[in-house]
Amino acid sequence: MNSETSSAPPVPARCDLIVRGDFVLPMTDGVPEIADGAVAVKAGAIVGVGTRARIEAAWRADDVIAGGIVLPGLVNTHGHAGMTLYRGLGDDMPLMEWLTGFVWPAEKRFTTPENVALGTRLAVAEMLATGTTTFADMYFFEDRVGRVCADAGMRVLLGQAVIGFATPDAPNSGEAIRRGERLVHEWKGHPLVRVSAALHAVYTLTPALMREGAASAAAWGIPIQIHCSETRKEVEDCLREHGVTPPRLMADTGVLREGTILAHGVHLTDDDVRLVLDHGAGVALNPESNLKLGSGIPDIDRLLATGMKLGLGTDGAASNNDLDLWDAVRLAATLPKGLRENPTAVPAAQAVRMATRGGAELLGMESIVGTLEPGKRADLCVIDTEGLSHLPLYHPLSQLAYATRGNDVVHTVVNGRVVYRDRKHTTIDVAALRAEVRALAPQIAAVCRRA
Amino acid sequence: MNSETSSAPPVPARCDLIVRGDFVLPMTDGVPEIADGAVAVKAGAIVGVGTRARIEAAWRADDVIAGGIVLPGLVNTHGHAGMTLYRGLGDDMPLMEWLTGFVWPAEKRFTTPENVALGTRLAVAEMLATGTTTFADMYFFEDRVGRVCADAGMRVLLGQAVIGFATPDAPNSGEAIRRGERLVHEWKGHPLVRVSAALHAVYTLTPALMREGAASAAAWGIPIQIHCSETRKEVEDCLREHGVTPPRLMADTGVLREGTILAHGVHLTDDDVRLVLDHGAGVALNPESNLKLGSGIPDIDRLLATGMKLGLGTDGAASNNDLDLWDAVRLAATLPKGLRENPTAVPAAQAVRMATRGGAELLGMESIVGTLEPGKRADLCVIDTEGLSHLPLYHPLSQLAYATRGNDVVHTVVNGRVVYRDRKHTTIDVAALRAEVRALAPQIAAVCRRA
Repeated sequence: MNSETSSAPPVPARCDLIVRGDFVLPMTDGVPEIADGAVAVKAGAIVGVGTRARIEAAWRADDVIAGGIVLPGLVNTHGHAGMTLYRGLGDDMPLMEWLTGFVWPAEKRFTTPENVALGTRLAVAEMLATGTTTFADMYFFEDRVGRVCADAGMRVLLGQAVIGFATPDAPNSGEAIRRGERLVHEWKGHPLVRVSAALHAVYTLTPALMREGAASAAAWGIPIQIHCSETRKEVEDCLREHGVTPPRLMADTGVLREGTILAHGVHLTDDDVRLVLDHGAGVALNPESNLKLGSGIPDIDRLLATGMKLGLGTDGAASNNDLDLWDAVRLAATLPKGLRENPTAVPAAQAVRMATRGGAELLGMESIVGTLEPGKRADLCVIDTEGLSHLPLYHPLSQLAYATRGNDVVHTVVNGRVVYRDRKHTTIDVAALRAEVRALAPQIAAVCRRA
Repeated sequence: MNSETSSAPPVPARCDLIVRGDFVLPMTDGVPEIADGAVAVKAGAIVGVGTRARIEAAWRADDVIAGGIVLPGLVNTHGHAGMTLYRGLGDDMPLMEWLTGFVWPAEKRFTTPENVALGTRLAVAEMLATGTTTFADMYFFEDRVGRVCADAGMRVLLGQAVIGFATPDAPNSGEAIRRGERLVHEWKGHPLVRVSAALHAVYTLTPALMREGAASAAAWGIPIQIHCSETRKEVEDCLREHGVTPPRLMADTGVLREGTILAHGVHLTDDDVRLVLDHGAGVALNPESNLKLGSGIPDIDRLLATGMKLGLGTDGAASNNDLDLWDAVRLAATLPKGLRENPTAVPAAQAVRMATRGGAELLGMESIVGTLEPGKRADLCVIDTEGLSHLPLYHPLSQLAYATRGNDVVHTVVNGRVVYRDRKHTTIDVAALRAEVRALAPQIAAVCRRA
């Protein structure tokens, strides 16, 4: 029995928005795809999910949008939105050459509050246009990131970066932690913007600083994001310097705890996996970034089998080179099959679940987003299945995992607001954004040498 | 010096079409991207490539199309166009379950001449819309495939499948070979349609039949396509049954020779690689199909290092689940990086080269397509870089490898004809196609059980 049956009034009641789909995928346990389905939205929340006939018997709205497949908005669990200005600035080179020749020179000069806002606006525009409704960020000037998201109607988990050296927005880690604290106060109770502590990584922080950051996060009641075991070198260096793996060092310093979001987790030992599980933490998987940067191939199926909280991420556009989470969905479903030579590894439904509900669980937002069910906030995206790559369409979930890409998204709704309608942004002036980015890009290119 | 300089008349001469791009990538040796470039086309051939200023000083045309990046049309070196009707019919299951429960029941009943034509029309429409201008096909009723391509203006290498048992279009292999011979005569001299002999695989052919097929192909002067070392099981079975690997069996039976196109090549030994090289054959790599079907991960960088002819393919839509070759480009550039933990493996330019010039070399068409240079046939695609995922755009080749997808293609030209213009097909009635496919799909679904 669908939940709207009991809660629906006897005559159609007003709601704000009805979203119709040839298929609605609620992503709730045991609920299959609903053919000719609909979702009713009122005051930013979902009030009904079911067949179109049942929803329209219960609800009516002036605003109706429709498409092929309606599913929860995607949750991009790891990225650096401000870095979108550095998309494709340097590729195909070793990590240190990329950092010293491109990223650091660019960041030193161009990572200003204004440019972080600009890069974030670009990132948010791209994510909304590709069906992502929530993202976890980890960068500098996160107050500006929050303001961009609040204005654009994007849900975000901010993460003011804490690193053991001077950064574009803090001369030292103490100031970075104070910036984090100000963020917590500034965004308290905001409907879209939440705050986390973004400790950068074991290789950029001392154990003392990890302890301080973890204690602050605990005191403020916010989750921690941290890069973890992204490369083999990171793990080897940690073992050499501290005698333990990164997750163990995180456990020892209080960083690894309930709700901690470990970005990457490409090189986790069996002991690491148990530690992560035992502490109630989870992993933000970024398979495309891991491939492109040569970090490795994450053991997605092995982590899934443990029941660990797992979300998908794009990482920054400087290392992906786009923010289309559908690529991560496809890789999550196909990489394990190829790696294990097993076509049944990570079925389509599991990959789509990681990109939606799994991501919400990882970010600690499972009570408000990640599925389509009454009571949750109305965060969803609508896929256009009129394109040739969806013809014929036998199984919506398979098609989402193996053929859908960002450009197939036709509408995106966050917190009940249609922020992307008929492939047009309603909250971002894309023409102005494009002009601003194009004016800045040549200056960025000029300070970075091409290998 | 650009070639149009010497051949250009002193006043602008008439040509049929000028294609302008913010960047033109000729993909010829030592020629970098041309900023603000153009390509002049006359009588189906390229007559000039250079800066817009130089081309427009030499040529004028009534028809001008433009976009962000102009590059040679993509060459999809392996697929089964007719199977597009079975896209996503069954996924996430072991090969034999998929074949016996889905593919074979569907093919037995639905692989008719009319449906092959319909499936091919769908495939051609999708390929043209995503920038592919040439494809190698391997299926049944290839006379119908040829007619669809001739009508749609798509370049194709037909491959009438020869298998050691009854198929939808031939009660026995002798009849399949006769069908192949008729194809050779039927399409002799056609500007778009060429013919190959498509021997299916070592596990569906006897050595005697391989010999017969190879001898026929040699007599007719056409190349051979064959599936080769796609799965570990194929190699193990071949070793057990014949005492040699598939490439060795192919060499022993005359199948492996100059111009032979080996589809997949996921599990090649060092000896196999040498055999392929020594015989002047090459491999059609299908990384996405290999991942999804659990066949493995091809050693793309290792094969590239040998100088072997290498092209990219999608394989059939039943195992991909789309015909967007840009996914193969991205995987070709990123899978080796992840697998080797080396960010410099297979740079962007090499991946794009495989999808264009490499594919043309593999299919024996390097003298007519694969690069943009005067004298070659005018097969090209134009990428729209106005999308957010291309903002900012620092390096066109990187962007092509790491962020471009099929939907970014805005115009496609084959043999000088604009077959896809402003994202609309000019030779295929897509609305009628969609209606036909949607009418047939429920019948196909009905005969296939869902696992």
